[in-house]
Amino acid sequence: MLLQQFFDQGLGHASYLVADPDEGVAFLVDPDRHLQPYLDAAAKLGVLITHSFETHVHNDYVSGSPALAALRPISVVTGDGAEVRYPHVSLADRETIDVGALRVHCVATPGHTPEHVSYLVADLRRADDPQFLFSGGALLVGHIARVDLLGPELEERLARAAYETLRERVLSLADYVAVFPTHGGGSACTSSDAASSRWTTLGFERRHNDVARAAMQDFARFRETIARGLPVAPAYYPGVRALNHQGAAAYAAAPLRVLRDPLPADATLIDPRAPHVFGSGHRRGALNIVGNDSFAVRLGAVVPFGSPLILLTVDREQAEALRRQLATVGYDDVRGVADPVPDTGEDLGRVRVVDARTAKRLSDEGATMLDVRERSEYERAHAPGALHIPYEQLQDRIAEVPRGRDVVVYCAAGVRSSLAASILERSGLAPINMRGGFSSWEIAGLPTEG
Amino acid sequence: MLLQQFFDQGLGHASYLVADPDEGVAFLVDPDRHLQPYLDAAAKLGVLITHSFETHVHNDYVSGSPALAALRPISVVTGDGAEVRYPHVSLADRETIDVGALRVHCVATPGHTPEHVSYLVADLRRADDPQFLFSGGALLVGHIARVDLLGPELEERLARAAYETLRERVLSLADYVAVFPTHGGGSACTSSDAASSRWTTLGFERRHNDVARAAMQDFARFRETIARGLPVAPAYYPGVRALNHQGAAAYAAAPLRVLRDPLPADATLIDPRAPHVFGSGHRRGALNIVGNDSFAVRLGAVVPFGSPLILLTVDREQAEALRRQLATVGYDDVRGVADPVPDTGEDLGRVRVVDARTAKRLSDEGATMLDVRERSEYERAHAPGALHIPYEQLQDRIAEVPRGRDVVVYCAAGVRSSLAASILERSGLAPINMRGGFSSWEIAGLPTEG
Repeated sequence: MLLQQFFDQGLGHASYLVADPDEGVAFLVDPDRHLQPYLDAAAKLGVLITHSFETHVHNDYVSGSPALAALRPISVVTGDGAEVRYPHVSLADRETIDVGALRVHCVATPGHTPEHVSYLVADLRRADDPQFLFSGGALLVGHIARVDLLGPELEERLARAAYETLRERVLSLADYVAVFPTHGGGSACTSSDAASSRWTTLGFERRHNDVARAAMQDFARFRETIARGLPVAPAYYPGVRALNHQGAAAYAAAPLRVLRDPLPADATLIDPRAPHVFGSGHRRGALNIVGNDSFAVRLGAVVPFGSPLILLTVDREQAEALRRQLATVGYDDVRGVADPVPDTGEDLGRVRVVDARTAKRLSDEGATMLDVRERSEYERAHAPGALHIPYEQLQDRIAEVPRGRDVVVYCAAGVRSSLAASILERSGLAPINMRGGFSSWEIAGLPTEG
Repeated sequence: MLLQQFFDQGLGHASYLVADPDEGVAFLVDPDRHLQPYLDAAAKLGVLITHSFETHVHNDYVSGSPALAALRPISVVTGDGAEVRYPHVSLADRETIDVGALRVHCVATPGHTPEHVSYLVADLRRADDPQFLFSGGALLVGHIARVDLLGPELEERLARAAYETLRERVLSLADYVAVFPTHGGGSACTSSDAASSRWTTLGFERRHNDVARAAMQDFARFRETIARGLPVAPAYYPGVRALNHQGAAAYAAAPLRVLRDPLPADATLIDPRAPHVFGSGHRRGALNIVGNDSFAVRLGAVVPFGSPLILLTVDREQAEALRRQLATVGYDDVRGVADPVPDTGEDLGRVRVVDARTAKRLSDEGATMLDVRERSEYERAHAPGALHIPYEQLQDRIAEVPRGRDVVVYCAAGVRSSLAASILERSGLAPINMRGGFSSWEIAGLPTEG
C-alpha cells in the first residue's frame, strides 16, 4: 500500500490518495475540488482511481468527489447517513469495500457530524488486520473535531456521540493503527492548538491526546475539554455543507475578466494587498483580505456565502491563485479583477497605521482598543481594557464599537486587524490599525492583562 | 513534526526530511547524493537543514551527507562505531541530539552492519515519549535487512547481533511507534518479497513480520527465516561501502561529451535500449542494460566498481538521467555518449529473439535453457532441465555454460536475459533470448518444474 497525503495549509485540510500499485488501483479519501494533483499523483504511481471515500458531509471545503465522479468512472462512497443527492454507494457500519488488495471497513463514528464515518484499512497482502484509520474528524492529532458546527440544538447530542465514538469505536482499536485525519492544524473544525504533525498513531493519541484521555474518564470532563479554545466557526460553513449535500460541479476556470471603472455595484470588493499598502490608499468599501494561505477562510468568515466578488489585483497569477483558493470554499462567483487603486481621481480610503507605543498613547488619551483575535488568544493576554470582538463577528456586533472616539484595532500580527479596520471603515468609522499586532505590543514591554 | 519520505524505486532506498516548522529547522536521515530534492523540500517548508543522520555505512548507495556538509553548515551524525573519515558527530547508544523541539535518541542496532544505529524521535512539544523510529535496516516492512553483505566471516556474528537487536532494542519499543526504514521493496539489502508499503508501525510488525515473530522464538528459527529468498548481493556493494567510509564528494555534472568512432577501448560500452532493438543490431562487446529504474543496480551487478563507461544513446535527456542513476551508486566515470549503432560499416552484433514456444522447440532439439533469475524465482518454477545461473554471477561462472550447442536465455520478462545474452556474446557465445521471459512461458501453458 502506498499513501500520499495532500495538505491545504489555509484550511488545515488533509486528503489522501491510497494506492495498491500491484493491482494498479487506488482510492481517495476526502478530496477537495482541485482534482489535478490527485490525478497527477495517481498517474505517477501508474494506478487508476476507482473510489472516493467521504468521511462526512464537510463544512469547511467543497468536496471534489462528485466532480471527479462526473469526469471519471469512479464510485463515491459515504456512510449510510450522509444522504447526499448525487450518485454514491453508501456503507453501513462494518460493511467493507475492497480496492485491489486493500480492504476498507466502514466504521460509524458520529460526533463531529451525525453521519460521520471513519475508514479502517487492511492491506490483505500483509494481513486481515487493519493498520490504517482514515479518521475524518473522529480523532485528530492531539484533539478531535468540534461538535458545535450544526447549531446548539444538535451540539449536546453530538458531544455525547463523540464521547461514545471515541470510547467504543476509535480508542478500542489497536495501538499500532496509523491515524490519518481530515482536519489538521489550522482548521477551524478544531481548536487552534492542534499540533503541527499531520498524522499520528492510535496508541500515542490514547496516551497523549487530552481529549482522548478525558473520554476515558467521565462525560463532563470530556465535554469541558472539547469546548476549550475553539475559534469562531466561519460563517460560510452552512453554505458549504448544503453545497456538499447537493454535490458541487467541477471548478470552472474561464479566464478572469479585467474590469474597468465604474465597477459593478453589486459585487464585494476584495483587496488582497499587505495592510500598510492597503492603509495608504484603497477603494472605499473594499475589504482588506491579505492574499496569503488563509485568504479563502477569512473571506468565508466575513463575506456572505454566494456573494459576487471582484478581486482588486492586477497580478494575473495572484488572481488565479486566489480564485483557486475561493473555489475550495465554494465562492465561485468571481466577476473579474480590477486595479486596487483606480486613476479616476476618486477619493481613496486610508487607514492610519501606528506602532504599539503610539497605540498605547492613543489608548491613554481615550481611544478604544479593539482586540479582534480569537477568544483563546484574547484570554491568554490582551491590552488593558481592550474590547474583544473576533473579526468574524465584527460586522454583526458593530454597534458595540463606541463611536465618537478613536478605535485602535489589533490582532496578533496586524493582518486580521486590517480586515477588521476595513469592515469598520465600510460602516463609517475611521479605525487605526496597530502594526505588528499584539506580539509587537508585548515585545515593546507594554502592560497586558488577562 | 513534518515528515517527508523520498523513495528511489531502483534501489528500494528511502530517505527522509524531518522538520520542526515552528522552530524552522530540519534534519535528514540517510540522504543520497542528489541533494536538490531535499533542499527544495526544506525551502518549501521554510526550514533550514541543520543535521544529517546516518544509520549505517551504506552498501547500496552513496551517502549524500558528506557532500551536503561540504556545501552547507550542517552536522553529519553517525553511531559511534561508524568510523567514517570525514567530519561528523558520533553518538553512543542512548545519547541524544535535539533539532528544534525534536529529540533524536541514538539506539545501537547492530545486525545489518556492525556499526548500525537507529534513531528514535520524540516531538517534545507533544510528549517526551518517542513516536517515530528511523530504523535503517534493523526493521523493515515485513522483514529486516540482510546480514551477509560483509562476508561469511562476519555473517554469523551479525545474525546473532540482529537477533539481539530485534529482541532487546526494537521489538521492546511501544506498539504505536511509527517505523521508517531506509531499505524498502526492491532493495537488494533485503529479500525480494519485501512488501510494497514504505513504512509501518511497530506493533503491526511485531504481529505480522515473519522475521520479528521468529526473533521472539529461538535463534535457529530466526537464522533460517532471514536467509530465505535473498537475491545475489550486487558486486558493487563493497566499493560503495568503502567510498562511504571515505565520504563521497558532491556529484559533478559537467555536460557529457559526444564521442566519435573509434571509441576509446578501455571503457565498458553500455547499451540502454530495449532488448528487441539491441538484438537487431548493436556494437560488439556492449552490455544491454535497459535504461529503466533498475539500470544502475544492474550495471553495478555486472560491471566492476570504478570502471570507465560509455553510454550508447543519442538521447541527451536519457543519458543525463542514467548518469544521475549511476552517481547514486558511485559510478562517476562516464566518459561520454555515443551512437548505439555506428555508421562505420563495422560488423554489428545480433541476438536472436524467440518466443516461448520456439524456445521450447529449441530446448527439445537439444538447446541449453539458461535461467538467469534469482534463486527464489528459479525455485518457485522454471523450465524443465534449465541451468540456473543468476545474471549477476554469469561472467564468473561462464565456464558452466555448455559450448557447441544453442543457449536459450530467459528471466522473468526478457530484460535481465538480454543483459545475460550480451555477457555471453562478449565471451564468444551466440545466445538466443526468450522474449517475454518465464511469464510468457507459463502463459503459453508450457511444462514447468520446481
